[in-house]
Amino acid sequence: MKILTTLPKNDGYAMPAEFEKHYGCVMIWPERADSWAFGAVAARRAFVQVAAAIARSEKVIMLCSFEQYDTAREMLPDHIRVVEMSTDDSWARDVCPTFVKNASGQIRGIDWGFNAWGGLEDGLYFPWDKDNKVARKLCDLLEKDTYDAREFILEGGSIHSDGEGTVLVTESCLLSAGRNPKLSKEEIQEKLKDYLGAEKILWLPCGIYLDETNEHVDNICAFVKPGEVVLAWTDDTKDPQYKMSKACLAYLEQQTDAKGRKIVVHKLPLPKPVYMQEEECEGLLHFQGEPTRREGERLAASYVNFYIANKAVVLPGFQDENDEVAKKILEKLFPGREVIQIDARDILIGGGNIHCITQQIPVFAGSDCEDNRTCEIGNGW
Amino acid sequence: MKILTTLPKNDGYAMPAEFEKHYGCVMIWPERADSWAFGAVAARRAFVQVAAAIARSEKVIMLCSFEQYDTAREMLPDHIRVVEMSTDDSWARDVCPTFVKNASGQIRGIDWGFNAWGGLEDGLYFPWDKDNKVARKLCDLLEKDTYDAREFILEGGSIHSDGEGTVLVTESCLLSAGRNPKLSKEEIQEKLKDYLGAEKILWLPCGIYLDETNEHVDNICAFVKPGEVVLAWTDDTKDPQYKMSKACLAYLEQQTDAKGRKIVVHKLPLPKPVYMQEEECEGLLHFQGEPTRREGERLAASYVNFYIANKAVVLPGFQDENDEVAKKILEKLFPGREVIQIDARDILIGGGNIHCITQQIPVFAGSDCEDNRTCEIGNGW
Repeated sequence: MKILTTLPKNDGYAMPAEFEKHYGCVMIWPERADSWAFGAVAARRAFVQVAAAIARSEKVIMLCSFEQYDTAREMLPDHIRVVEMSTDDSWARDVCPTFVKNASGQIRGIDWGFNAWGGLEDGLYFPWDKDNKVARKLCDLLEKDTYDAREFILEGGSIHSDGEGTVLVTESCLLSAGRNPKLSKEEIQEKLKDYLGAEKILWLPCGIYLDETNEHVDNICAFVKPGEVVLAWTDDTKDPQYKMSKACLAYLEQQTDAKGRKIVVHKLPLPKPVYMQEEECEGLLHFQGEPTRREGERLAASYVNFYIANKAVVLPGFQDENDEVAKKILEKLFPGREVIQIDARDILIGGGNIHCITQQIPVFAGSDCEDNRTCEIGNGW
Repeated sequence: MKILTTLPKNDGYAMPAEFEKHYGCVMIWPERADSWAFGAVAARRAFVQVAAAIARSEKVIMLCSFEQYDTAREMLPDHIRVVEMSTDDSWARDVCPTFVKNASGQIRGIDWGFNAWGGLEDGLYFPWDKDNKVARKLCDLLEKDTYDAREFILEGGSIHSDGEGTVLVTESCLLSAGRNPKLSKEEIQEKLKDYLGAEKILWLPCGIYLDETNEHVDNICAFVKPGEVVLAWTDDTKDPQYKMSKACLAYLEQQTDAKGRKIVVHKLPLPKPVYMQEEECEGLLHFQGEPTRREGERLAASYVNFYIANKAVVLPGFQDENDEVAKKILEKLFPGREVIQIDARDILIGGGNIHCITQQIPVFAGSDCEDNRTCEIGNGW
């Protein structure tokens, strides 16, 4: 693995869209007792369901600690690889590399700086040194060269690419005080263009209410194809989310993408607000002397936090009447893919959802699933 | 990765010889402070030299702890993969899987039981749980199925295969009280045949004097081609090794291999006895209240502990007049390979040598170096 200090854009590399073909997906086994309630038992089951759903149409690598290997190996289907790696928690989207690809189909990983969503300013845990080493080590594991972008703090959940030069972000996250406070918006925009090989950055003002990542874009808005997005939506004017979603819609209606297209916005309804229950709070270890979550705390539940696998969309469910509505909308928007809905409350409690716990690896020249054969191992699951 | 409880022989799998073509080699980064003197600094340098020499003609994967990743990555050539894995020490030969191969070129790994060369009877450290998980985890990493042979205690250094049905072992090791005391010699022999796909086991009586592995075969005798071995030798009748090597020679002269061939024995002279020096002992942490090694302790130095890479033989050197003699003998015996000699005192202090810190992965159907192209990355090193 070469550690590169050049810029992907100058090298002819750009970030593919998630709906483009994957080699596979990386996930991280849940373990941290202040994130995952009751010894992470329920979270493990939910992660297994997500991994198995993704593994129907692409490879899955599950990273886990030394201590958890045997349990992970036992609980996961054979065709999912379990690989030891030290991490601080289970947010593969945010700690794994963002992969970029060139015209010959070669891929490289970007090793962003990671500071637990805000560092000493408003980060969510300390320390985060293990997480911050995951991206580079995963590139080494996959025998891919890696761009050293550690000076720039960014998480995979804060960017979405359409694969045609346009990248979606939120101002609330990328301009937060805990990430790159010394860089101006323009400087951050240039970094994004240079690393993601993008031409245009679309800056949504905000994300989902109380989303503790400073409102990652991947919880509020996602590309479903170039020029088209889904936007998390509520018609309840009393919900603080109403104004936030409306502001995003207003912004998107005024924008064109890198190709000059107007953005088509599909509203994806939110579930009714989801709150922490007393007994869930009791299942979590305290963090630095404080309860991690409190009874009645609203969680940032959103259907937008889905993962697009090669032949499926893996969608969170909240035992809400909109579960079915969201599923139908996505079935229409992803005609070639099965929408697999997984009850995600046990993931949500940890602070994110299905998109947050996954990171795609684009298919690459010479990969053993380029012809779509070995990618399909395990259809039985 | 499937965990198999069948027997390789019944499945059509057998252990190739080390001189057959490799996909690559696994090593483990040295760290343990009661094995490697003075913070393992000199050991790391020696391991890097060995890895780089092997990487001239095949892939190398270096396993290392979370803590050592950055140092290993910095010290090793780019084209060597560094992969996190927890271990108890650095003896890849003994803790990594033994790979077996079928007629279609597929490979599987055998996950032997590992108890630190003798468990509570006369094992060399405690605990050994991390080491005992390496084989299975490495198979998972390589996406190879694994045979569960954990009930049978065996190390890779205690077997040598000629790839044509004959396996070399030592009685001193395989019949030791700390390994499989409930099994008879005949039962152990059947296990070896079943797992290694062998027809005939050749039982040398012993190995190298004071070899703390209960005299692994890989320090005294190795196949250089089917029907031909090198045997560690001394003509010094006062050296306790004299009788031991002579007993092995006498045994071999009476034997034929699985194909009915008489065994051709090439004597490989030993270096003059190598002893621990006072300052080396001072560089080692104590183990369980005792010095790990004592001044004047004789180390089991032997030129037989070489590694056969695709285009090289990586041979230990001891700054002894026989360094050059051994090199010349091996150059003659391995005409298609360069003999690369590496000063190995800093490895020897740890208790083994170049063969002990390496484990080959045979080339397999579909591997990206089957055509010998990518295997040759890094000829510059």
